[in-house]
Amino acid sequence: MTQVAVLLFNDFETLDVFGPVELFGRLKQHYHILFYSLEGGLVKNYHGVAVNTSKLEELKNGAGIFLIPGGYGTRVEVNNATLLDLIKSVSMQSEFVHTVCTGSALLAKTGLLNGIKATSNKRAFDWVITQGPNVNWVRKARWTKDEKYYTSAGVSAGMDMTLGFLCDRHGIEFARKTAFEIEYNWIEDMEEDDFYEQ
Amino acid sequence: MTQVAVLLFNDFETLDVFGPVELFGRLKQHYHILFYSLEGGLVKNYHGVAVNTSKLEELKNGAGIFLIPGGYGTRVEVNNATLLDLIKSVSMQSEFVHTVCTGSALLAKTGLLNGIKATSNKRAFDWVITQGPNVNWVRKARWTKDEKYYTSAGVSAGMDMTLGFLCDRHGIEFARKTAFEIEYNWIEDMEEDDFYEQ
Repeated sequence: MTQVAVLLFNDFETLDVFGPVELFGRLKQHYHILFYSLEGGLVKNYHGVAVNTSKLEELKNGAGIFLIPGGYGTRVEVNNATLLDLIKSVSMQSEFVHTVCTGSALLAKTGLLNGIKATSNKRAFDWVITQGPNVNWVRKARWTKDEKYYTSAGVSAGMDMTLGFLCDRHGIEFARKTAFEIEYNWIEDMEEDDFYEQ
Repeated sequence: MTQVAVLLFNDFETLDVFGPVELFGRLKQHYHILFYSLEGGLVKNYHGVAVNTSKLEELKNGAGIFLIPGGYGTRVEVNNATLLDLIKSVSMQSEFVHTVCTGSALLAKTGLLNGIKATSNKRAFDWVITQGPNVNWVRKARWTKDEKYYTSAGVSAGMDMTLGFLCDRHGIEFARKTAFEIEYNWIEDMEEDDFYEQ
């Protein structure tokens, strides 16, 4: 049983979180989901979604998968040194770290992505790369994987990345079956990126 | 400003709810989202997601859009006469009613879909149609619309239906721009259904 620890902060992006949660959540025999935030308690976003969380410091031993979403909140949190320190230590202790959308900006800011391939939201890309000048940023990608780090493009791409992770771990038929069950047209090729504009 | 009232019940399907919520939620100038359940309070599903809700009876004047998701919980709720009565009265008072996945089983059970085109989750279809023998069920569809009722196929299809609704209301360029912003490959044709198997 792999624990999926989802980081939340105010103004996280709804689908960045609940796309992967739909996929991991339905695989009850393999994955167990828990939500965390810096302070614990109810975390809200501007879509009107509020989720109850545990304190991130309880995760000091890391998780099987540490999932960092994006959203407008990242613009604030890249300046939150306390949160960044905890993101860094939890990420170092975790078996895998997944970021969706501008979640890669938070991870980049910790320094852990230096020399690592990563991607992010297309429309926020120029801002994201300023958070980690030494990251090997890949502008045209649905998602990237490098060592234990998976990073996806914007919002919906988190689902393709999660299915890509399920493929790497459980095989292509398992991933295709999971996508089929939610009637999702999985983009299987991590380099296929319809949203890249030169 | 259109109010989107989302019905929740135990073991709702995560993405049925948060796919449409992502789309409506980011259009703050047009839509405002609120969550309801029969009893009010915290509603949970087996993915580990818990959402705070208001009592459905507070919605007796209806909403701009009443959104009914699916999920395993529908198997229980089709036998909940109190809930079905409220779903019926709220739906009658609402300007539009949207269902995702097996949410159409709940709406069908109220009788409001009699003679109306509707669809549902592929893998649950044979069960769903038993909840409304007089509904004009469409097995091959990404989504349907008929009078004020929009119904989608399984899980992910709720996002395509929501974009279809945005297209009907705000125009194709508005819907395409919204899909582009979340890097989503919108299936624009409601009759294009890759998950239909004869």
